[in-house]
This record gives sequence, C-alpha cells and structure tokens, in this order.
Amino acid sequence: MSKNRLEAFSDGVLAVAITLLVLDIKVPPISSPHTLGHDLLHMWPTYAAYVTSFITIGIIWINHHAMLGRLRETDHTILVLNLLLLLSIGVLPFATSLMAEYLKQSQGEHLAAAIYAGSFLLMSIFFLTLNRHILFAKAHLLGLQLSEEQRRSIIKRSFVGLIPYALATALSAVSPYITLTICFVLAAYYALPLASADEGH
Amino acid sequence: MSKNRLEAFSDGVLAVAITLLVLDIKVPPISSPHTLGHDLLHMWPTYAAYVTSFITIGIIWINHHAMLGRLRETDHTILVLNLLLLLSIGVLPFATSLMAEYLKQSQGEHLAAAIYAGSFLLMSIFFLTLNRHILFAKAHLLGLQLSEEQRRSIIKRSFVGLIPYALATALSAVSPYITLTICFVLAAYYALPLASADEGH
Amino acid sequence: MSKNRLEAFSDGVLAVAITLLVLDIKVPPISSPHTLGHDLLHMWPTYAAYVTSFITIGIIWINHHAMLGRLRETDHTILVLNLLLLLSIGVLPFATSLMAEYLKQSQGEHLAAAIYAGSFLLMSIFFLTLNRHILFAKAHLLGLQLSEEQRRSIIKRSFVGLIPYALATALSAVSPYITLTICFVLAAYYALPLASADEGH
Amino acid sequence: MSKNRLEAFSDGVLAVAITLLVLDIKVPPISSPHTLGHDLLHMWPTYAAYVTSFITIGIIWINHHAMLGRLRETDHTILVLNLLLLLSIGVLPFATSLMAEYLKQSQGEHLAAAIYAGSFLLMSIFFLTLNRHILFAKAHLLGLQLSEEQRRSIIKRSFVGLIPYALATALSAVSPYITLTICFVLAAYYALPLASADEGH
Repeated sequence: MSKNRLEAFSDGVLAVAITLLVLDIKVPPISSPHTLGHDLLHMWPTYAAYVTSFITIGIIWINHHAMLGRLRETDHTILVLNLLLLLSIGVLPFATSLMAEYLKQSQGEHLAAAIYAGSFLLMSIFFLTLNRHILFAKAHLLGLQLSEEQRRSIIKRSFVGLIPYALATALSAVSPYITLTICFVLAAYYALPLASADEGH
Repeated sequence: MSKNRLEAFSDGVLAVAITLLVLDIKVPPISSPHTLGHDLLHMWPTYAAYVTSFITIGIIWINHHAMLGRLRETDHTILVLNLLLLLSIGVLPFATSLMAEYLKQSQGEHLAAAIYAGSFLLMSIFFLTLNRHILFAKAHLLGLQLSEEQRRSIIKRSFVGLIPYALATALSAVSPYITLTICFVLAAYYALPLASADEGH
Repeated sequence: MSKNRLEAFSDGVLAVAITLLVLDIKVPPISSPHTLGHDLLHMWPTYAAYVTSFITIGIIWINHHAMLGRLRETDHTILVLNLLLLLSIGVLPFATSLMAEYLKQSQGEHLAAAIYAGSFLLMSIFFLTLNRHILFAKAHLLGLQLSEEQRRSIIKRSFVGLIPYALATALSAVSPYITLTICFVLAAYYALPLASADEGH
Repeated sequence: MSKNRLEAFSDGVLAVAITLLVLDIKVPPISSPHTLGHDLLHMWPTYAAYVTSFITIGIIWINHHAMLGRLRETDHTILVLNLLLLLSIGVLPFATSLMAEYLKQSQGEHLAAAIYAGSFLLMSIFFLTLNRHILFAKAHLLGLQLSEEQRRSIIKRSFVGLIPYALATALSAVSPYITLTICFVLAAYYALPLASADEGH
C-alpha cells in the first residue's frame, strides 16, 4: 500500500473525529428552568473540553504527517499500528463528552477526568509505538537518512511527552480541574510556535 | 508539511461540518398534537438557519482555497492559525441548531441570534488573521508575486467584510430576525457571480 | 479553482451524507413491549428508504464525476451551482428519516412521501441546471469537444430523468408506497449495467 | 471513471463509518442510580463491539486497496458492486450498536448477535463478489498479470474467509458471547502480521 493512501485514510478519520466533537455541545433544553444565558455559562466545561480535544487532535494530525513524512513505503505492521492509533483517536469524542458531562454535574468527575487524560495518554503511547516501529524496526523503509542518535532523540522526546499526560491522569484523583488544565496547557504549548518540533507529542 | 495535505485536511473538516448541519433538522415527533404539515411549517427557522450556514460554509471553502492557492509551502504558524479557523467552523452546527431551536420557541432568541452571528464573526476574524499572516508575515512563502498595494487591498476588503457580521451580532438585541436576514443576505451576496472576488469573506 | 479540488470536496460531502444515512436506523428501545424480532420487522420502511437513498446518492456520485469529467477548469458559477446541488443532497438524510418514521406510523405519510420524492426531484433539477450551465453557458471550459447535438441530447435525457421523480412526488397523494416503489425502482434501474449512460439522472 | 476517484470515495465512506462507531458509546446518564464506575464497567459489550467493528472495518480498508490495486481502470459494474459493498459497511454502526445494547440487557441478544455477525458475513459476500468480478469477468481491466491459478487461489481464500462468519452467525443461537468472540478473534487474526495475506477477508 502506498503512503499516500495511508495518509488520506488517516486524514479522513482525523477530520471526522475532530468535527464530530461538536455533537458533544448540546443545545440547552427549551424547558430548562433557567435562562439560556445561565445554561450556556453553566456549560463551560463542555467548551473547555471541546477546545482542548480539538487542538490536541489537530496537533496529532500535524505530528502524524511529520512521522509518515519520513516513510518511503508502508508494510502490514505499520497499517495495523496506525489503525490502533486511529482507534484511540476515534474514542476521543466519547471521552470528551464524558469529561464535560460529569464535570458539569460534579459527580463521578474524578473518574471521568482520569478517562479523559487516560485517552490522551493511550493515544500518545500508540503514537510512540508506531513512531518507534517506523524509526527502528523498519528503518529500511525510511525515505531520508537519520543517524541512530537522531532517531533515539526523536523517540526520547516522544517518551518525555507521555509524562504530562500520565501526571494529568494521576492527578484526576486530586481534582478534575487540574487534569483539564494540564491537558489544555499541553495543547496550547504544542500549538505555540516555540514547540513546533514535530515529535513533542 | 505540503500545502496539498493542509488543503485535504481542511476540505475534510469543512465537508463533514457542512454535512453535519442536517442533523439539526429533526424529524417532528410522531406524538405531536399537530399535523405533520403544521409541524414542518413551524420549523422554518431551522430551514433558514440550515441554508444560511450551508452556503456560508460553502463560500468559506471557496475563499479558503483562494487564500491557500497563493501559498507555495506552509509553516507551523499557518497550520495552527488554520486549526483555529477550522475550530470556529466546527462549532457552526451547534450555533445553527441553537439559533433555530430558540427562534422557534421565541425564548432566549436574542442571545441565540447573537451567538449565531457572533460565530460567523469569529470565523471571519480567524480567516482575516490567517490571510494577513500569509500575505505579510510570511510573504516569502507566497507562490506568486503580489505588490504591497495588492496585499493591502485584499486585507482591507477582508476587514470590511467583518462589518456586516458585527452589525448582525449587535442587532440581535433589536430582533433575531434582522440578524438571520443579514446573515442570509450576506451568504446569498457572496454566492452571486458579482461578488466572486475571493476575499469578500 | 482546480477541478480536482471541486471533486474532492464534493466527494467528501457525498461520502459523509451517504454514511450519515445509517443514523436514521435507530436501535429499537429495550423497553419495547414487543420482541426485538417484531420491532425489527416493523422497521422495514427504514430499510427500504435507507437502501433507496444510499443507492440514489451513489448513482448521483457516479453521474457527478461523469459531468465534471468533461470540464477542464471551473468558474465561480459552477462552484455555486455545485454548492446548491450539494445542499440538496445534504438534506437527504433528513428526508429519508422523515419518510421512514411517518410511513411506519401510518400518519402524515402522504406528505412525508411527497417531501422524500420531492427532495430527489429538487436534487435532479439542481443537477440538470449545473449540467446545462457546464455544457452550454460555459462550453469554452469543456475539456473535450462535444457537438451541439450531443450536448442537447445529454440535457434532454437529464430532463426526461426528472419525469419519474415528479410522478413519484405527485403520486404520494394516492399512496406513499407507490412513491417509495418508484424511487427504489429508479435507483435499481440506474444501478443496472444497461442504464450506465451517465446522464440518466 | 478513474480508479483514484473510486478509491477516494470508498476511503471517505470507510473513514466516516469507522469514526461514526464512537456514537454508539453513549455517556452514562447522570441520573443513573449506580456510580459512574459501575455504569462504565457494565458497558463492556459496547467496548468489545466497538473494537471488533473498528478493526474489522480497518482490515476491510486494507484489503479493499489490495483488491483495487490490481485494477488499471473501472467500469459501471465495478462501481455498482463497490456501492453495494459500501452499503453493507455503512450499516455496521447500526449492527454494532444493536449488538451492544441488547447484549448489555440480556434481551433479544441471540437475534442481535445473529444480525451483527450476519452483517460481517454480508459484507464479506459483497467483497467476494466484487473481487471475483474484478479477477475474472473483467480480467482485461487488470493492471498486472495474474495466472488463472493465482486468481482462483485468491477467490478460494476469500471464500474460505466466509466460513467463520457463517459459523459466528449460526452460533448466535447457542450464545451471543461465542459470536462476539469469533468476530473479535477474526479481527485480531487478520490484524496480526502472520495473516497479512490481503485476501483473507
């Protein structure tokens, strides 16, 4: 299978997943006892989770292309590892909705936050696994020459990128707001020009 | 990252967002005390908001390509500004649904209309920001030569294009029908052959 | 704007619209007083409308490419007429759901059927309008030479293709089952190898 | 119609269908009498069905490209057979949701499992039909030379691939858990490197 086809399919799944996030922003029911303004303000965790997830998926899209950009061709293992990565991205609309709903009601919010950050962590692990496979196990498929040192450095940075998500997951036991803040700050950090090194995620 | 890839992903998000708008048109409940004909007529704000949003996203798609068509290559800032533009387009199915639902019930409709036109305004601001970055800060990435004057003229027209949306947002305090009318007329105006200058939005 | 880009965006909208149709097939509620088998059989109008709409959109996709395949480049009018065609395709998941729900309950089913067939009719009219514009008003954009006679013949067949949908819409006053049958037979007819002339729709 | 266009549209439908699967994972209602943890654990059939369907569609995507990769050009019959294949893939989000909902409630779960595995079986039959048409009826469209023997061998393996799905469908009468297990094991088997022969499905 050509690399282009793999990119096109991955782009499709990412584009659908990122756009489906909007379905989590539900129109407040007309029958609500409060004013629309009150209801919309009360929904702030939904907006925070939406923006965080949207930017995170967008960053993953950018990094995904940097990763595949090094490939000359693909093999079955790359296709399957990529499928697992897409699977972990595909569940983000659910994790985002879960986080927002339960944070809003202050009920079960610690578990919801753990699942939210845990989904990002899982996605990062699948990303690291695929990246590692491409850079080492399948180095002969690479289109451009990278020294052993350069490749180790890329993986190391990817590995360091897991730590904040592991922290965000663990700290959900303390407060879901800390979890959401870490995830949002990470998304903003990777979006900033300074962090444009493509392997941060 | 190649320009093609950026276009393909943006096209994907726009295609999904424009098609998801249909989910806002809900089948009237069978248990309604009225006839189907009555219920369907009563839903007219939904159709008006649907057509307005659909054509507006379609126009943005046309303008988006005119904007990217001038680029030879992309950089991290363009990717991130484009992501923010996509984010503002991604929320349009929500804003459209909110507008239609609350206009139908004549309740909270002023705020809903302000959010509806405000979403278009926000989208236009992100569009202007990205366009400005491409034309000035990153002029060396441009594929075709444009004089300083031509570039200023494009941005000026983009800036003028913000005014009607700002007006539509402000006038929601008077009547949400005025807001919806302005947004619809704008969409129709940009769709007409006369307004085919690609930077109107 | 290049033709490829127009095709890619149209393909995206068609692919999303055709796949969103599945959301109309709702899982029967667990709390139903009937068995699952009974409930699933009772949903047959949903399956009939799903298959009819799916194949019809698929045929439109095939014909859309035959139509654009004759173009060398596009202009603003083509983009806007194509957008109106996509708009009429975008509402098909709603029309399909409306048809299925009201046919199932034998309530308001004549109107629902009229809207269902009327949506196909509207789509065919937009298709004809775009095709006519491409073949005549913009003949200089055509990539391949077609005689005046050949072009008239294509439009004439497109026009004849409207008649069965007009008939299906009108006959909804008699019976919605006739309407659904005509729409299904048309979809099957165009899918059959014999009707592979690309302008039938 | 060019092969590329057929692949792009098919990729689009597959990408949307695989991503829509997430809509089946519903956020547990806040009003539930149980804790969130209990509710999420109770939803395990949803996760199992999600992962199984996601990987199965992913494998079909891989095999679909292997199948089309042999083609040089397409014809009307290939387009229509491919449309039927897409139709059978398009209903998988419904079949997945049906399976998960009814397995969770231990009600009507035998029928739901039969429909679930039966959908995979139907998809495999359409895949085999299209593959057979490409390899034999339309051998002159093939881009690469394959001996009669090689083509027979591909079809034979495709045919053998139907057996486990037929078995999974039949065994739903015994236990829906057996059905789900067979479908999951099949997905995992085809994903494993050893089974990378592209015609297994």
